[in-house]
Amino acid sequence: MPTETDPRFLRSREAILHAARELLLEKGPAAVTHVQVAERAAVGRATVYRHWPRAEVLLGEAMATVPMPFLAEPTVPTRDWLRRELTAIARQLDLDDVRAVSTTLAGTALWDENMDARRAQFAGILRGRLAAALDDAQARGEITLAIPSENAAAMAIGPMYYRSTIERTPIDAVLIEATIAALGTWSA
Amino acid sequence: MPTETDPRFLRSREAILHAARELLLEKGPAAVTHVQVAERAAVGRATVYRHWPRAEVLLGEAMATVPMPFLAEPTVPTRDWLRRELTAIARQLDLDDVRAVSTTLAGTALWDENMDARRAQFAGILRGRLAAALDDAQARGEITLAIPSENAAAMAIGPMYYRSTIERTPIDAVLIEATIAALGTWSA
Repeated sequence: MPTETDPRFLRSREAILHAARELLLEKGPAAVTHVQVAERAAVGRATVYRHWPRAEVLLGEAMATVPMPFLAEPTVPTRDWLRRELTAIARQLDLDDVRAVSTTLAGTALWDENMDARRAQFAGILRGRLAAALDDAQARGEITLAIPSENAAAMAIGPMYYRSTIERTPIDAVLIEATIAALGTWSA
Repeated sequence: MPTETDPRFLRSREAILHAARELLLEKGPAAVTHVQVAERAAVGRATVYRHWPRAEVLLGEAMATVPMPFLAEPTVPTRDWLRRELTAIARQLDLDDVRAVSTTLAGTALWDENMDARRAQFAGILRGRLAAALDDAQARGEITLAIPSENAAAMAIGPMYYRSTIERTPIDAVLIEATIAALGTWSA
């Protein structure tokens, strides 16, 4: 196997990650396969397989370098915005590939510092965005929070994440409404 | 590597899993290491490493064959029982080894049928026990459920699981109280 500083491999590596990101953004996580990535990057499939034996790890690296779209740019009413965002997260978590990435990220992070840094970044963005949106909503009188706002990501995303990765059943609107209601008393 | 039907390996395998289960029950998940399991099973460390290169997979197999202690035998008042049980689950999830097992189980289940069967059994027991306890509590007038009782495991355990495996910060009493409150209106 070439070392990390082999310039030929570094070029392939960059091309492979670039192709994976493009496929992710154009066609979604299911498109980030060894075959499609190799074709798009114009490298042999064996090269992709050798460096990323499991496609979900490659997808994880690609995901870590694209902007996180969820819970960005809150709109008012906050409850409607939150329902749309949580529904979008739920649809992603219902995809096998996203489930694979999130569990791989959580598992690998326990013994790999780079993956742990990605996990922390990912979790911190979601927690920060949701806390800020809910603090603003409370300041506007839209909600009286039942919990500290930094707990909101765990309270809102946790049940969907458990449903998706542990119970492995689809996330329905009833569960999403329940998590929204659990955040506090909505005024409208 | 010996095949699965090699009688010598099958004997070692049984001894290794037996030792892992004993260590798990006597000393907790952190004790299920290659070294301690090999010593207890009276087999060479190399044998344990060869068949379970990652200790958390061995721990996962051992865990799958011991009784699941959580949420068993509800007592009244249900809210106090639930607080104790969720606190016990939280303490387990705060252990690195248990985090490793749960994420390994969730991840490996995506491509391994045996692991998926264990995941389904594990999730089904938790969901069934909590739903039954809450239905009984509602029948006694202790709570008016805000959610279908089969959603309770995701609502109660999900936030702790997300906090532990994605946010990687300790589960505090505030989060546990918030999940208990989210299940419905408690009468006392």
